[in-house]
Amino acid sequence: MLTSLRQYLPILSWGARYDRNALSNDLIAAVIVTIMLIPQSLAYALLAGLPPEAGIYASIVPIMLYSVFGTSRALAVGPVAVVSLLTASAVGQVADAGTAGYAVAALTLALLSGVFLLVLGLFRLGFLANFLSHPVIAGFITASGILIAASQLKHILGIQASGHTLVETLISLGEHIGDVNVITLVIGVLATGFLFWVRKGLKPLLRKAGLGPRMADVLTKAGPVAAVVATTLVAWGLGLQDRGVSIVGSVPQSLPPFTMPGLGLDLIRQLAVPAVLISIIGFVESVSVAQTLAAKKRQRIDPNQELIGLGAANIGAAFTGGYPVTGGFARSVVNFDAGAETPAAGAFTAVGLAIAAVALTPLVYYLPNATLAATIVVAVLSLVDVSILKKTWRYSRSDFAAVAATIVLTLVLGVEIGVASGVILSIVLHLYKTSQPHVAEVGLVPGTQHFRNVNRHEVHTDPTLLTLRPDESLYFVNARFLEDLITDRIARDAQVKNVVLMCSAMNDIDYSALESLEALNERLKELGIGLHLSEVKGPVMDKLKGTHFPDEMNGRVFLAQYDAWRALTDDSTVRAAE
Amino acid sequence: MLTSLRQYLPILSWGARYDRNALSNDLIAAVIVTIMLIPQSLAYALLAGLPPEAGIYASIVPIMLYSVFGTSRALAVGPVAVVSLLTASAVGQVADAGTAGYAVAALTLALLSGVFLLVLGLFRLGFLANFLSHPVIAGFITASGILIAASQLKHILGIQASGHTLVETLISLGEHIGDVNVITLVIGVLATGFLFWVRKGLKPLLRKAGLGPRMADVLTKAGPVAAVVATTLVAWGLGLQDRGVSIVGSVPQSLPPFTMPGLGLDLIRQLAVPAVLISIIGFVESVSVAQTLAAKKRQRIDPNQELIGLGAANIGAAFTGGYPVTGGFARSVVNFDAGAETPAAGAFTAVGLAIAAVALTPLVYYLPNATLAATIVVAVLSLVDVSILKKTWRYSRSDFAAVAATIVLTLVLGVEIGVASGVILSIVLHLYKTSQPHVAEVGLVPGTQHFRNVNRHEVHTDPTLLTLRPDESLYFVNARFLEDLITDRIARDAQVKNVVLMCSAMNDIDYSALESLEALNERLKELGIGLHLSEVKGPVMDKLKGTHFPDEMNGRVFLAQYDAWRALTDDSTVRAAE
Repeated sequence: MLTSLRQYLPILSWGARYDRNALSNDLIAAVIVTIMLIPQSLAYALLAGLPPEAGIYASIVPIMLYSVFGTSRALAVGPVAVVSLLTASAVGQVADAGTAGYAVAALTLALLSGVFLLVLGLFRLGFLANFLSHPVIAGFITASGILIAASQLKHILGIQASGHTLVETLISLGEHIGDVNVITLVIGVLATGFLFWVRKGLKPLLRKAGLGPRMADVLTKAGPVAAVVATTLVAWGLGLQDRGVSIVGSVPQSLPPFTMPGLGLDLIRQLAVPAVLISIIGFVESVSVAQTLAAKKRQRIDPNQELIGLGAANIGAAFTGGYPVTGGFARSVVNFDAGAETPAAGAFTAVGLAIAAVALTPLVYYLPNATLAATIVVAVLSLVDVSILKKTWRYSRSDFAAVAATIVLTLVLGVEIGVASGVILSIVLHLYKTSQPHVAEVGLVPGTQHFRNVNRHEVHTDPTLLTLRPDESLYFVNARFLEDLITDRIARDAQVKNVVLMCSAMNDIDYSALESLEALNERLKELGIGLHLSEVKGPVMDKLKGTHFPDEMNGRVFLAQYDAWRALTDDSTVRAAE
Repeated sequence: MLTSLRQYLPILSWGARYDRNALSNDLIAAVIVTIMLIPQSLAYALLAGLPPEAGIYASIVPIMLYSVFGTSRALAVGPVAVVSLLTASAVGQVADAGTAGYAVAALTLALLSGVFLLVLGLFRLGFLANFLSHPVIAGFITASGILIAASQLKHILGIQASGHTLVETLISLGEHIGDVNVITLVIGVLATGFLFWVRKGLKPLLRKAGLGPRMADVLTKAGPVAAVVATTLVAWGLGLQDRGVSIVGSVPQSLPPFTMPGLGLDLIRQLAVPAVLISIIGFVESVSVAQTLAAKKRQRIDPNQELIGLGAANIGAAFTGGYPVTGGFARSVVNFDAGAETPAAGAFTAVGLAIAAVALTPLVYYLPNATLAATIVVAVLSLVDVSILKKTWRYSRSDFAAVAATIVLTLVLGVEIGVASGVILSIVLHLYKTSQPHVAEVGLVPGTQHFRNVNRHEVHTDPTLLTLRPDESLYFVNARFLEDLITDRIARDAQVKNVVLMCSAMNDIDYSALESLEALNERLKELGIGLHLSEVKGPVMDKLKGTHFPDEMNGRVFLAQYDAWRALTDDSTVRAAE
């Protein structure tokens, strides 16, 4: 009972051992993360098309709920770039940005996503996330980074524009390019340049100035705060809002309010598919961050419990004015590097942000939106990694096809079609590969009991014995392939008296393949040729033993291929090979 | 050039060797098949909701075109039960039975199906048919047989009824049950009973009377003709059409007319998906019949050329008043048993049916539709085979799930959803199985160089050496599984100094799995544990050699597992095992 309660409430495990040392480490990490999160939360809300406070609210209750239910010690949950983009894309299809309906739809999306994650977790279906292959994820993240950066150009240029695909966005930007606000552009370009320099150039400088690597890292992460402070002061001092510079404006001074997601059937129907997509992509991003960080400290995370933690976080976001959240890469790494020891650090971060929501929001009134856009552009361009194209091209054409399709279709047709196509293409290519498996004809490696491909190794063979090693499980997609291949091979070679299927690479034989083997056995029996099996794995043999096939087989089942070789070739051949 | 022409025109191969003996055999087969096909063609047209002549027309030009382009010597192409049912289901959604639009839509369906088959054949995509597993096909055929039999009850009862699913059909029958025409019912029941008796009881009787087995077979197949003749005479003699018995009525006396399929974009859009389904199901049925018959005479058929042959046949049907066709089981077996030697037998059958279309159609004026329905019911009930449920249940739960889902969903939701669900479920279950593969921990079988599962065999092991044999290709769906499994195993066992992955069952390593192996290697390196590979297959090693992984590996690649064992265990253990 307690074990199962502990499984679903990891806080009971780490909470019982919580001490003063952990408290002080967690507090320090929380302060650093809070400072970093204030501008980031505002920026991601902008990206999602929501009012700035939504980003802050989405960082408070969700992270507290995750700290109760989640298994990662360092994961920081809240708004992230890719999920914000997906939110904008999904909600933009049911409501106009800036309307009350838009905010309500975002709450509904968070609720649906939370419920879906929770259900997956309770039914222990976390493995479903594995259907997103690494190349598809890498391609999707890269394309999303480009899309997000393009979507922020309007804020840096100070113009209106819209669009859910790269082409739409660029065309819309082109149409409004005449409206560019020069002051906004200057702020945007300077902020972007400064932030890039902070990322690449500041850290070596700080190290040279004698700072420790950890301190240098943390200061570098504070770059966006510096940009925010500087541009806010400039905008306030020069009264830039009167000269057409778009600023954040008034943000309510409040703790996260209680909000009610829309529960209309139509709305739910329209948002269900995007919610599933957001959940799975958010989960995959979150789990891979959590696993990377856990491995560094020899900790383990439980993917199914993570689903429950993220589900709770999203449901929390839905009722407290937020929008879909997940474990973010940047914030989690900062949290980890700053020394967070337990999920309590996340709870302290939530307290810090709650204080900021109540006390500091008036200070961002004059903050130019261009500065927020600059922080987004710099953050997401670090996600763009086209080297995956080169790496997969070298390694395997089918992985390359999956990456390329995901990138191109995400850019051209939008995020949902892009990632769905990537997943479907990965699966189809995998099935295609297994539909025409590699089948090696093998012989004995001299001086051993080991059998290898006759085309790759110097091996002994016997003209009356054909030994084939099909390098794939036999199942419906390739069931007829082997039957056809052996029938053809026998027709060309009259010397063969025995066929041995070396089953070392055969991990399953499904019912279609069983029927195909039975047909092959009948055909060989009519021709007076024996059909034997060797090295059949335990689980496969268990299945075959439940059928008539072993009895009807015109041959034997050998434990090892070497036994088959000794039994089916004549003595002189055996001696010659020894 | 000639080779490639021969590939696409198989008639050039067999035509060149055609002789008098083959001619006489083909002619005899053609006469027998023609007699059998006249009632069958009328009946299947009734099933498809088309006028009776459509069934005859669909048996003339298509079979001639197939004899030019097809590779099977015995396949008889024309209307078949399942495709007729699918036609009724697809066309019934765009037009009302009996209207001109209905017939035109059936032509369009044949054209789309023909073009699709032709394209698949030209691009050599015949392997796609393998995605229909044997259990899905068996389940679909069984459920179709039940659906078809239910749909014919209205003709036997002499009432109106409609419906595309079993429930709809039964409800509709129930609503009209008060209108039963007793004379029709008597004819229908007697004809059905007679035909069942012919199938089961007549052959033994004929054999006892001294007939040869082939002649007895052929006479048995003529049963429907006897029923047709008898009931037509009765209906004519007693003037049954005036007493409410539905009869075939006037059928035009004509050769197949030139017809133009509808080419409206809307119609094409509505029929495209059903056309793909009909093509694939028809192709699978046809190819399996053709392969079965070819194997009996040691002939080969080429599935991609079959696609071209069936494509041509369907295009022919579209322009000559027919509807979708494929190679039928019953008619092909009769053709084969009657001694057909070449596709010329099919062409002669076409001539026979053309003569019937011109000369014999007035004779079927008084034929009761109940008789045709009886021939359909008896034919399709032989397709129903629920033993597949028992067989798959015993062999494998996932195959059983695919059969059961296909049968239930076909009956409840209709043919299209049924077969699509079966295919998707088969694929998902296959992927699920490979997502959590069997991983065996192996040791040395005493006195051999062979390694097997420690849980199934008495084997030697070494506590410092952990040898795992993952029984699956490593790819994105299971990439993280192995990494997690080894990490857990190492955490529980401090003695392990070396991990060997025995790759004899690993047929591919995709990019996701490569990244996972790299992460595993890093983790083991940090723990001071070696990671080695053994028995890596040629194609997999070729891929790995193109990466940095073999260089970065904290261990070696061994040709055979026995080499790894000798290198990584100390001498005393090696000696003890010998």
